[in-house]
Amino acid sequence: MAVQKFALGISYDGSPFHGWQRQQSQQTVQQALEEALSRVADHPVRLAAAGRTDAGVHATGQVSSFVSGAERSLRDWMRGANALTPEAIAVDWVQPVDDRFHPRYSAVARAYHYVFHDHGNAAGDPFLRLRAWSTRPLDADAMHRGAQQLLGEHDFSAFRGAGCQSLTPQRRVNFCTVRRAGQFVVMHIEANAFLLHMVRNIARALHDAGRDGDSGRVGNLLRGRDRTRLGATAPPHGLYLSRVAYPQYDLPSGRQPFFLGF
Amino acid sequence: MAVQKFALGISYDGSPFHGWQRQQSQQTVQQALEEALSRVADHPVRLAAAGRTDAGVHATGQVSSFVSGAERSLRDWMRGANALTPEAIAVDWVQPVDDRFHPRYSAVARAYHYVFHDHGNAAGDPFLRLRAWSTRPLDADAMHRGAQQLLGEHDFSAFRGAGCQSLTPQRRVNFCTVRRAGQFVVMHIEANAFLLHMVRNIARALHDAGRDGDSGRVGNLLRGRDRTRLGATAPPHGLYLSRVAYPQYDLPSGRQPFFLGF
Repeated sequence: MAVQKFALGISYDGSPFHGWQRQQSQQTVQQALEEALSRVADHPVRLAAAGRTDAGVHATGQVSSFVSGAERSLRDWMRGANALTPEAIAVDWVQPVDDRFHPRYSAVARAYHYVFHDHGNAAGDPFLRLRAWSTRPLDADAMHRGAQQLLGEHDFSAFRGAGCQSLTPQRRVNFCTVRRAGQFVVMHIEANAFLLHMVRNIARALHDAGRDGDSGRVGNLLRGRDRTRLGATAPPHGLYLSRVAYPQYDLPSGRQPFFLGF
Repeated sequence: MAVQKFALGISYDGSPFHGWQRQQSQQTVQQALEEALSRVADHPVRLAAAGRTDAGVHATGQVSSFVSGAERSLRDWMRGANALTPEAIAVDWVQPVDDRFHPRYSAVARAYHYVFHDHGNAAGDPFLRLRAWSTRPLDADAMHRGAQQLLGEHDFSAFRGAGCQSLTPQRRVNFCTVRRAGQFVVMHIEANAFLLHMVRNIARALHDAGRDGDSGRVGNLLRGRDRTRLGATAPPHGLYLSRVAYPQYDLPSGRQPFFLGF
């Protein structure tokens, strides 16, 4: 059989892993999936990914790809991968793609959720505190108003992490919404691409607006282009990579996240 | 300072632990808490518990106790225990109790939740599958009708696990309700005490009633007193120890579970 490229849709709870990318001594999502797919293929499989999520970050719509000449049905790939990976990983779909597909370079937009849990008590919730940012009560409407000041193409230096390798701080935000979902406040943001820690820094700015009700601070921060005017980056465990867009390919969408399912 | 007995209210996500009870080589909730409290006390602390939950079982209202002569405020005990245990454990309250208090023998009733997740897809939900039983769509009303056939004092041999050490199969069920909560179906049951695996075997029987709508099967099983007429015990990761009742003591109640917070 000829060598074929496959795209995969992947969800994972990032809390037991040290991020996506393979490391020497710590368990990562890439490593767990490569080991499972290598056993299904009966040859070493290497994965490329749309986004190399940091330690503690989750995904409901990560997209990855690999090549194999092994004769396996799509169902075999799916079942094998799900049977041989930890419960915190799910392969949601597998689909053949042409050779030119690359999960990172073929993508034209990425979307993330950032989840705040503002109904907890002082001790924190043992079921949620690695799956959301536990914080005090937030004004979701003020956060949503602040978020609208980020739409369109801007210099996002105000939200750019130190060490960002990007050639330009210009990015285009397609939408950014904030709404309450039960005990959660959920931010949903899509852009053509993101700078290092940009989503988590925006989450921090919206969080501050949700605490004091001053939604104007978000636009002021953006225009100031000065990262030092914002507090610490929001923690990784509130962040979910939710969708990667490839309009030129007909790929299934990601999974409905548990925090929106009520 | 005189030696004092303390009661603790504890919540935990059981998925990273091998149950409550201390073991030689695997991490348990008891061990993690004893190590933390021993560091706060600066002497070895041993814990007794209301229920020795199995591997994978969760708690939102476990009650435990220890004795110490160390001079620490209740706030010190709480903060120290929460700072020194993994994120999957929370100490919700600490309170002084008299010497006669025993978390297991002083209890007059126990309540559990059993959580079914019936809105998933084939691959399972990586965020929920260690926190609920992932299954196909259930009829919560049929399950609730079936549950009403268990109320009162009965011989619960039909739901008794092999190896149960209890002297008698008689137990008194105070209430058993089943209701939908968003993407979950939640059973809530209280009894004076439970036989080995009794809650999970009842969960299995109600699950079957929720699949085929035949709520009468639950009463038939109970009256048959024959464990072999029921399928496999429901998995441990749907089970939550939610409340232990000590009417003679004025102790705080457990935590609102995340699956009811919507």
